[in-house]
Amino acid sequence: MTSASFLSDFHAVAAIGATPNNGVDRQAATAEDALTRDWFAVWVQEAGWELRVDSIGNMFALLEWTPGAPFVIIGSHLDSQPLGGRFDGAYGVIAALHAARRISADVDAGGELPRFNLAVVNWFNEEGGRFAPSIMGSSVYAGLLSRDQMLAVTDLQGTSVSEALEGIGYLGTAEAPAAAGYAEIHIEQGRILEREGISIGVVDSSWYTQKLDIEVLGEQSHTGATAMADRHDALVAASRIILMVHDVTEEFADEALVSSVGQLTLEPNSPIVVARRVHLIADLRSGDPEVVKAARAKLIGDIDALARKYDIKVNVKDFDIRPIRRFPQEGLELAEQVAAGLGLSSRRIQTMAGHDSVAMNTVAPSVMLFIPSVDGVSHCEREFTTDEDMVLGLDMLTGVTRELISGALANSATGSSDAVNSALPGADAENAAALPGAVRA
Amino acid sequence: MTSASFLSDFHAVAAIGATPNNGVDRQAATAEDALTRDWFAVWVQEAGWELRVDSIGNMFALLEWTPGAPFVIIGSHLDSQPLGGRFDGAYGVIAALHAARRISADVDAGGELPRFNLAVVNWFNEEGGRFAPSIMGSSVYAGLLSRDQMLAVTDLQGTSVSEALEGIGYLGTAEAPAAAGYAEIHIEQGRILEREGISIGVVDSSWYTQKLDIEVLGEQSHTGATAMADRHDALVAASRIILMVHDVTEEFADEALVSSVGQLTLEPNSPIVVARRVHLIADLRSGDPEVVKAARAKLIGDIDALARKYDIKVNVKDFDIRPIRRFPQEGLELAEQVAAGLGLSSRRIQTMAGHDSVAMNTVAPSVMLFIPSVDGVSHCEREFTTDEDMVLGLDMLTGVTRELISGALANSATGSSDAVNSALPGADAENAAALPGAVRA
Repeated sequence: MTSASFLSDFHAVAAIGATPNNGVDRQAATAEDALTRDWFAVWVQEAGWELRVDSIGNMFALLEWTPGAPFVIIGSHLDSQPLGGRFDGAYGVIAALHAARRISADVDAGGELPRFNLAVVNWFNEEGGRFAPSIMGSSVYAGLLSRDQMLAVTDLQGTSVSEALEGIGYLGTAEAPAAAGYAEIHIEQGRILEREGISIGVVDSSWYTQKLDIEVLGEQSHTGATAMADRHDALVAASRIILMVHDVTEEFADEALVSSVGQLTLEPNSPIVVARRVHLIADLRSGDPEVVKAARAKLIGDIDALARKYDIKVNVKDFDIRPIRRFPQEGLELAEQVAAGLGLSSRRIQTMAGHDSVAMNTVAPSVMLFIPSVDGVSHCEREFTTDEDMVLGLDMLTGVTRELISGALANSATGSSDAVNSALPGADAENAAALPGAVRA
Repeated sequence: MTSASFLSDFHAVAAIGATPNNGVDRQAATAEDALTRDWFAVWVQEAGWELRVDSIGNMFALLEWTPGAPFVIIGSHLDSQPLGGRFDGAYGVIAALHAARRISADVDAGGELPRFNLAVVNWFNEEGGRFAPSIMGSSVYAGLLSRDQMLAVTDLQGTSVSEALEGIGYLGTAEAPAAAGYAEIHIEQGRILEREGISIGVVDSSWYTQKLDIEVLGEQSHTGATAMADRHDALVAASRIILMVHDVTEEFADEALVSSVGQLTLEPNSPIVVARRVHLIADLRSGDPEVVKAARAKLIGDIDALARKYDIKVNVKDFDIRPIRRFPQEGLELAEQVAAGLGLSSRRIQTMAGHDSVAMNTVAPSVMLFIPSVDGVSHCEREFTTDEDMVLGLDMLTGVTRELISGALANSATGSSDAVNSALPGADAENAAALPGAVRA
């Protein structure tokens, strides 16, 4: 089957919210996000499928062959990070639309009637750059996050999710379809497939991750008139903590741990005032839970010592603890068989990033697929995957979807999670209990 | 003369924009700033004096005994830092109103007709927390900054000075009075007077200061999926620079140099994205220009080495270079005589902070006075000065003002400035020329 219309659609969507260096800026529920949603709605209407928008802004295109039967759902998200890449999320949605159209054409041409119906989804706010937490729409669908709480979340300007969705006309009222299975395809965002020359990654599990919410409290004073010895500068202390979070990775094997501080708020943020408060979010991730726990313990101890040494108060809270989540074994084997049938090389792979599939895997047997990322870069304008790899991935998703709607995983369990030890020890840390089942990236 | 009405006025103004811990939040041209302006206008109206508001929002109360004669101007500013102290600026304006009322009463009671008229001023935007640069209203008055450029300055929300002033009804059209002299009283914001038990500081000069505008450019990437070795994290590099700016003070004698970073902007500021850009402002101040120049040279070199080591781009620009400015010798001697006449102890002192008087001193002979600050703290809620010290300062300002309107400094020159070497050397630095005569804190 020709892939020209798929590539044409992909590059058309990449032009929506395009940035000067080949990226896109389509944060959740902005005008640019609305344009991709309109594109999705028009595409679905032209295909003759039913469109539903639920009350957290998820968009579903329904192909209902057997009234009353549950749906296999395939898709991803069209929103992006600020100055993000054009592949992350959008590739998965557009591939899903085209996979569904291929399958629909086969059924219409007199093929076997599938056991399950099929839906293509564009999940709301996977990225979480504007509204935290990320993976919002699929987590609400899966019952991991409260719809009402998420509708009340506000961005830095004070606009709520419900106001923003209403403002762009995508706060729907429809019921979401029930899921019998889920499949998603995405760029790897790492360089393993590229390095090994492999076409398809079959995701077997997600990394163990946690965040630390760190509040540094100094004393506001005049930058000119306050003696250095009299200062309690929250930004100087925060800078030491940012370097601790970075350097702690050196305590472990190369790349066994990744850590970062990506968000920081400074008060009062005036050029001639010593800062009184810095709030920052640290992110720790590893394939091995013990590595994250050891890094966290070292950081808690070092931050405590720093607070004592400089007479600064630091509040540290654990949050967003995500256990290792495993995709069902039957799904892995199914994907490997489909790849082999198409003559595509594949390997099992872990995901360091969060995805909508990780949330969906808690309510329906799910298959998560990767295609290669050039240089492994993501969440930036120079994110890149070749047309050829995208087309191979579309064939792969189509094949897996055919199996899923035929009932290949009908008797499989959903994914499993390792236990989280929510009683983490720590001198200064206030332990926020891990939300049961919460999946956030 | 009783000081009860002065203290009552001072504490009434401290209630406008009051914060929970005894501070105030009255940033320039906000609703809270408007309330103190209304208070000033009503007070002046009740005193029977003429009120003028000029086209950069400076408010002048005129006591015109001799039509056509120039004015001695006294006052300070009613705006504050966010969560600032209730003494900084407000004390000087309210003391000036009461000094003027005492003198007016004497003249009305048949005292000698002064040589000069008298005006009390509330300068616009001394603090610069919302609209940069600081010391805006008095610098426009003195011709050091362009009125049109300042009206176009915007805050972080994109509101311009002219829109903000118009919004609160204080974008005036009146001509400001011509100045024959200037006096201002302010809290010290340091601990020298308190430590030595002295009532009045007579400011002889301002510190040498400069700012560095530092832009750190890394590469945006995914915090979870990007290997540590592949990152170019702008926030990690910025943290190292913040510590360099802090630690450079240790290269010099104790407290010979103060340095700080009070403002920082992070992009994209998302918890799961490695930062691509950090913009920060460093502030260097010393009584000795050579110390600032040596610190700057060390920082330029260290930042250059850091950029090379971590493959990050850093742009550094010099700006806001302020030479040491000296108040006229005759004014210092006059203030010392007035203090001695009142039985008050005094000493000469430098100011590390900028003040409206530093701008005014370029166009009229000016006298700058300090009263003690408890613990030396300022630009924070626990800024404090006793009622007793405030009343002694009011007596002092009244005495100095009497001499100024009698013509004591009529033949004095304005203050003088040391030369600024605007051709600063520096590998990575783009040297923005120092604005001729610009005075900004």
